[in-house]
Amino acid sequence: MTIQHKLPADIERTSMQIIEKELLQMGIEIPSENDAVVRRVIHTTADFEYARNLRFTPEAVAQGVTALQRGVTIVTDTNMALAGISKPSLMALGASAQCYMAEPMIAEKAKLQGTTRAVAAMRYAAQSCPQAIFAVGNAPTALLELCDLIEQKSLRPSLIVAVPVGFVNVVESKERLFAVCTEQGIPCIAAMGRKGGSTVAAAICNALLYMATGRLNPSARGWQG
Amino acid sequence: MTIQHKLPADIERTSMQIIEKELLQMGIEIPSENDAVVRRVIHTTADFEYARNLRFTPEAVAQGVTALQRGVTIVTDTNMALAGISKPSLMALGASAQCYMAEPMIAEKAKLQGTTRAVAAMRYAAQSCPQAIFAVGNAPTALLELCDLIEQKSLRPSLIVAVPVGFVNVVESKERLFAVCTEQGIPCIAAMGRKGGSTVAAAICNALLYMATGRLNPSARGWQG
Repeated sequence: MTIQHKLPADIERTSMQIIEKELLQMGIEIPSENDAVVRRVIHTTADFEYARNLRFTPEAVAQGVTALQRGVTIVTDTNMALAGISKPSLMALGASAQCYMAEPMIAEKAKLQGTTRAVAAMRYAAQSCPQAIFAVGNAPTALLELCDLIEQKSLRPSLIVAVPVGFVNVVESKERLFAVCTEQGIPCIAAMGRKGGSTVAAAICNALLYMATGRLNPSARGWQG
Repeated sequence: MTIQHKLPADIERTSMQIIEKELLQMGIEIPSENDAVVRRVIHTTADFEYARNLRFTPEAVAQGVTALQRGVTIVTDTNMALAGISKPSLMALGASAQCYMAEPMIAEKAKLQGTTRAVAAMRYAAQSCPQAIFAVGNAPTALLELCDLIEQKSLRPSLIVAVPVGFVNVVESKERLFAVCTEQGIPCIAAMGRKGGSTVAAAICNALLYMATGRLNPSARGWQG
């Protein structure tokens, strides 16, 4: 078997062309404003279900990009998602990313508050960076806490990326969060259904970061290099 | 909508029961030796395709568990996979995990060798920890390099977890690697087809780690708590 070695940038460009072609063959048309995000998630997962699962509040992508260009913080609920977010892009924008989950003070707060670390981490982030982009790829309880904080008017984030994965409370938490965001006019990008995860959270953040830095041109279809 | 809050351990137990039930409904029977790994990957991805995609050389799971109990190093090709691997389990076994991809000396080696960072990182790991478990969730070029090193008798790892994701060279690299491992008698767990990724690589390592530490009982079906 001969396998042609290719450079990472060439592989990415070819991958995006394959994704475009297969979406076309499946008769799936993605609204152009959401196109870069949907493709990057498919690129990250090789799973075309995301073409149907991803749901966006109106202008969520543009609002996320603008927030990153203002230099907001991205708060994640896993260190995996944090590890996957493009550090050069964050640096270029003067933005940053944080995950509080593994910090000892969060474990302590969770114990004191009788709650999970995910909830304690969201409460802490809501106080320390209330205009952040929240990227939740793991914990449904984190999403439910964000719902409560928003409804109590204690939080008004720039965007919520709501993509926990799993079998218990996951579908319901994403549905509630999307409804709350729609009602309160908060931008939201969610993967409806069971699927999602840290790689999906990071992929969505990276698509927004690449648009914010001009590496991706949001008005053109696909990858610019 | 009322959503019942649950503890993480209860969520995991319920999730595993749902996965077991749905596999049964789909008429999918997983050989008991591979069961814990397959279920953990489905738990991590909510994607039942892995019940058919995951391929194991004979006794790969047992050999991976034994290697971890000996305290081998897990080498990953992404910092995301590294972030997802259970640190308490590694510590309990005296094992460790490493990712060389972002180290400046690897970028330098790649430049000098005229290759990618993934290839340079695998070459370096093959020298510094030749008995490692290699967990590749991203770069097909990393897998192809492992194939070459094994065929040159420069490397004899304890296990290869071969789960890159994507559209270019991914399917081919996993097929070649699985064939090489089969031929050379090297334990291998691979996700055939396009799917995989850092979360899948970490999930497979964690399933092995939980078995190695006794948190999961490999002879019983499913999760022990």
